Amino acid sequence: MPANPSPRTPAWPPKSAPRLFVEDTLAEGCTIVLEGPHAHYLGKVMRAKVGDTVILCDNQTGEWAGRIGQVAKRRIDVTASERLRPREEVPDLWLCAALLKKDRFDLVLEKATELGVAQIQPVVTRRCVADKLNADRAITIITEAAEQCARTALPQIVEPTKLDNLLKNWPEERTLYFADEEGGGPVTNTFVEHSGPAAILIGPEGGFDDAERNAIRSLPQAHPITLGPRILRGETAAISALSVWMAVCGDWGKSDHSGKE
Amino acid sequence: MPANPSPRTPAWPPKSAPRLFVEDTLAEGCTIVLEGPHAHYLGKVMRAKVGDTVILCDNQTGEWAGRIGQVAKRRIDVTASERLRPREEVPDLWLCAALLKKDRFDLVLEKATELGVAQIQPVVTRRCVADKLNADRAITIITEAAEQCARTALPQIVEPTKLDNLLKNWPEERTLYFADEEGGGPVTNTFVEHSGPAAILIGPEGGFDDAERNAIRSLPQAHPITLGPRILRGETAAISALSVWMAVCGDWGKSDHSGKE
Repeated sequence: MPANPSPRTPAWPPKSAPRLFVEDTLAEGCTIVLEGPHAHYLGKVMRAKVGDTVILCDNQTGEWAGRIGQVAKRRIDVTASERLRPREEVPDLWLCAALLKKDRFDLVLEKATELGVAQIQPVVTRRCVADKLNADRAITIITEAAEQCARTALPQIVEPTKLDNLLKNWPEERTLYFADEEGGGPVTNTFVEHSGPAAILIGPEGGFDDAERNAIRSLPQAHPITLGPRILRGETAAISALSVWMAVCGDWGKSDHSGKE
Repeated sequence: MPANPSPRTPAWPPKSAPRLFVEDTLAEGCTIVLEGPHAHYLGKVMRAKVGDTVILCDNQTGEWAGRIGQVAKRRIDVTASERLRPREEVPDLWLCAALLKKDRFDLVLEKATELGVAQIQPVVTRRCVADKLNADRAITIITEAAEQCARTALPQIVEPTKLDNLLKNWPEERTLYFADEEGGGPVTNTFVEHSGPAAILIGPEGGFDDAERNAIRSLPQAHPITLGPRILRGETAAISALSVWMAVCGDWGKSDHSGKE
């Protein structure tokens, strides 16, 4: 679902232009050398040729249109020609998600990125079936999701931490909403009541245990929310709560969603 | 994430009891013969024994606790002993979702069920990469999701239809929200403004084409919604819009989420 296609969109850069996050800092006229997976993707998958347009993002200066200047076997040169957008303002929402089985957590990473979170904090709780996360793999999933959904900023992913540590070091000014199986406030009202920096904490399959729930509840910044009468899987709870926050407190209510300045 | 576990939940039936939808109509004392995949699941996967508790649903009378009376090689008998809940009241929301690639549409079916929709209408649009749906497979996904999330009612899944037909036969009293790439009202406000029966229409990857968008917009019951500035994949748009509707107009705001009468 393109956010803003057709009539109002200029013909250049073309909608179908590949979109890539690069390591280098971009500037007008700078030439970026793409190798490895980027070169493979552009050259073999997208069959890019000299003169083709590529959209480049660097997670710092924003989004640029670039043109391919050279295509070699394992290397493609792209020159940044015009900044299309500055780096977006990211709604100040963290997702603190208990680790799930690999494919379910992959989905959390992909969807949290699409939905626009600022930070993803994997959490280890007593009922987690996993306590590790492959950081490289997570960054790849997040980057590809950001490329696909036209974000110009990557969410930050931090090291998994135990729930106890998360709560012990919780920032004073950040509201922590947690999906509480014992019930909580209606989610829209609860979100509206608290403004400012926020985080959503989602437990593993099987939920938090009683000691964990008490520890969370005793944090002054914590507010329980309910996500309805059905038993949501961990990844569904994460996606749903993020969606509702974005609709109520995030940037879904703004009138200009053209993605342009 | 159990909706309501521990202290308030009675010890019987046990939380871990398998949950199954059956074809037969349930009543107190009736014995159900489980064969095929049900018998395999209970006997081989769950290693159920005589006397074990099974939760049975029939999509008609509600949810029952049953006890296993006999375990044979390919057949297990369960006797319904007590009705735990009547069939739930289902919020009157349909999902009309353009067909997507198989794994992405499977996710839509699973999550729409978890999120509590009444009906799922697969839609064929011009940019769809698929125009068929394996009905048996879809029913299996929906049933397993309902078993997992403790629904007592299955969403109805209907035959895929072309967008033109959907619009031509659209029920007069049902609001049709559609995720419009050209922009629309903020989603929470738009949902609140219209009460009563509703449906959410989500386009395929690549969105609706101009003619389709015009056709939808010309339907008096149609109201465009926006799902924020990022380009959401089809399945993400479906899950997000359903979540927001359930939070704003559905049953997430009700105070008693115990799932009991």
